[in-house]
Amino acid sequence: MSYDFLITDLKKNFSQKAIGTDKGLAKIGDAIVNLSYSVAKSIYLTKKQLNASCYRTGSKVSKKILAGALKEANMKSFSKNRADAHDMADTVEAILAFVWLSGKMSIQDMVNSLVDSLSGDLTNYKEEIEISRKAFVDLLNQVKKYLPDK
Amino acid sequence: MSYDFLITDLKKNFSQKAIGTDKGLAKIGDAIVNLSYSVAKSIYLTKKQLNASCYRTGSKVSKKILAGALKEANMKSFSKNRADAHDMADTVEAILAFVWLSGKMSIQDMVNSLVDSLSGDLTNYKEEIEISRKAFVDLLNQVKKYLPDK
Repeated sequence: MSYDFLITDLKKNFSQKAIGTDKGLAKIGDAIVNLSYSVAKSIYLTKKQLNASCYRTGSKVSKKILAGALKEANMKSFSKNRADAHDMADTVEAILAFVWLSGKMSIQDMVNSLVDSLSGDLTNYKEEIEISRKAFVDLLNQVKKYLPDK
Repeated sequence: MSYDFLITDLKKNFSQKAIGTDKGLAKIGDAIVNLSYSVAKSIYLTKKQLNASCYRTGSKVSKKILAGALKEANMKSFSKNRADAHDMADTVEAILAFVWLSGKMSIQDMVNSLVDSLSGDLTNYKEEIEISRKAFVDLLNQVKKYLPDK
């Protein structure tokens, strides 16, 4: 299942900056990031519960976390020159939207990738910042193969 | 594909209010609503373009629109007593998260349902409010069969 017809222009003009600076993609990606992370966090916390009860939660992933992940994955080249944290977070969202719309990864695939990278105490806010950034670094490294070399 | 293990409690205590007032579900549903509507709007506008170019956009669906849709679908019984617009919007989000987590509808299914209900000029803000409310009414009516009778 893919939405290739929504990205025909980007498949033709297949460049890191065309994908990474697309504002529409970033808006779609915002919801993809928040949905994937919310479900991943819910799964992780549910599995950790000793009493086998369910733990459902949602988290907006902060721009700072996403910007940090882009840098750590060495993918700043997808962002515009002199990009600030907000621009770089948009780039992460645009990249993940491109991968999802092209059908290379489903929401479930992204959730699974994030869950695999989660560890430690996610209910501790400071710890969660580090852990979630690392999880997005891992996800970004995983989607590189679907993206242009330059 | 389902995340039934995240909703075992709600499947056991299968009541309209248990689902419709669950805060964790509402948080997950927020991203589901925004993703589904953003993609549906992008598809609708892309298909309407005469020059066959792509139109990607994202929209946060306002609380007012979702609250109106809940009332119009006669599903206020899922919300708490004396619910305000914010509560009712949360209820719509919780309901759609429940349906998605239980695997009854995928994001693509929700996108398709919304696209089928879209019409008119979505680039006109006032028109979009009416149109999008109607689209969510149709979607809510469609998911009723997966929900408790009371």
